[in-house]
Amino acid sequence: LISLVLFFCSFVPLFFYPPATRNVGHHSAIVHNPSSTLERGIPLTNATRLDAQIGFIIEIDKLKQVMRRTQIMDGSRHENSAEHSWHLALMAITLGEHAPAPLNLGRVIRMLVVHDLVEIDAGDTFAFDAEGHLTKTEREQAAADRIFGLLPDDQRDDIRELWEEFEAVETAEARYALAIDRLEPLLCNLNNGGGTWRQYGITRTAVLKRMDPIREGAPGVWPYVVSAVNTATEAGWIAEG
Amino acid sequence: LISLVLFFCSFVPLFFYPPATRNVGHHSAIVHNPSSTLERGIPLTNATRLDAQIGFIIEIDKLKQVMRRTQIMDGSRHENSAEHSWHLALMAITLGEHAPAPLNLGRVIRMLVVHDLVEIDAGDTFAFDAEGHLTKTEREQAAADRIFGLLPDDQRDDIRELWEEFEAVETAEARYALAIDRLEPLLCNLNNGGGTWRQYGITRTAVLKRMDPIREGAPGVWPYVVSAVNTATEAGWIAEG
Repeated sequence: LISLVLFFCSFVPLFFYPPATRNVGHHSAIVHNPSSTLERGIPLTNATRLDAQIGFIIEIDKLKQVMRRTQIMDGSRHENSAEHSWHLALMAITLGEHAPAPLNLGRVIRMLVVHDLVEIDAGDTFAFDAEGHLTKTEREQAAADRIFGLLPDDQRDDIRELWEEFEAVETAEARYALAIDRLEPLLCNLNNGGGTWRQYGITRTAVLKRMDPIREGAPGVWPYVVSAVNTATEAGWIAEG
Repeated sequence: LISLVLFFCSFVPLFFYPPATRNVGHHSAIVHNPSSTLERGIPLTNATRLDAQIGFIIEIDKLKQVMRRTQIMDGSRHENSAEHSWHLALMAITLGEHAPAPLNLGRVIRMLVVHDLVEIDAGDTFAFDAEGHLTKTEREQAAADRIFGLLPDDQRDDIRELWEEFEAVETAEARYALAIDRLEPLLCNLNNGGGTWRQYGITRTAVLKRMDPIREGAPGVWPYVVSAVNTATEAGWIAEG
């Protein structure tokens, strides 16, 4: 009986949701309307809440077009930030026991699938690009305002909180998430013949500095990282020094 | 003090982990050793547990190469199953309130990032390919044996359980996860000009049948789906009938 009631209740929104207002093929309208509605401070009905959510979901498809310097493990092409984020989520599940203490792994996974969204506007800033890092924060804050702002207010705040927690690297969850984010390109480079290390002549010192968050965030993995960096240096994939 | 102790404890595995055993540039060895160790039933040390986990993480990079029939929303290229899985995770977070009852959303997200891994061996079976679906289960079971089998036994079982829960579609979490998995390609087609619907001349009846799991798994989204399918049919992107 309960499921029957729920089933019929699910059709209630139909009455508030005229099919003619759907803009198939004009998704810019879907993307931008919700935001302006929010700015005007009009409380969202169920239908406009869903519109805002769908607008966000459509907008973030663009992360599949943000290319990283890292190549995927077979070296056939560059990696995009969406598939990178997926890989991190599964890495976090797999390597949880190597974190220093029990974690809220669910929160880590949410952080990881959210953390690169700002790159839709701000682009991926290459790990060893000192100049790009000077303006990174400013570019990414503006991106967060716009992209998370597509969501209904409560969800905008939740997602932003996840992103800011990741960026601040103050909680155990954020430290572990950052460790995973650093480990993935190392594994890519180890498996695609040296990748960005060789391409940009990165030194052992610079690589170890970049990997350092793993020491605190996932200490059980750190010996592997040091060993792998040493072997890659011996192989000439990482520059001495 | 506790963090100091933890810090030094983190170096203990170093003694069991000779750098010379790392096979940089020979990742097939990294992938296959753990599995054979498991088959021989030798209890895993911390180092071989980590080896098995890293082997799994390297293997699943291949999901980035599994191409779906669906194109991403700007229509510029096909979507791969890794970035698709990432999108589903964020969609599940965004649309949770439209499920019929409160869910274990963390479990949904884990299910979604895991559910396509079998495609590494079994390939993506196109939604409207009746013939491919005849052998899908068999192909995917063998893939699950091999791919999840790279992990230490306890993790292999956990991941397989997630995958089997998704496949069985019996829990509220699996129903919602399936709804999200069906909604994503609909949004792609709506935004890339009709996508696979137009390319393969799919009928309205077939699309609605494919989308039907959304009615039960995410009832709050169903009116949107019906409305969008109707509009896409009127636009000629979905065939009448």
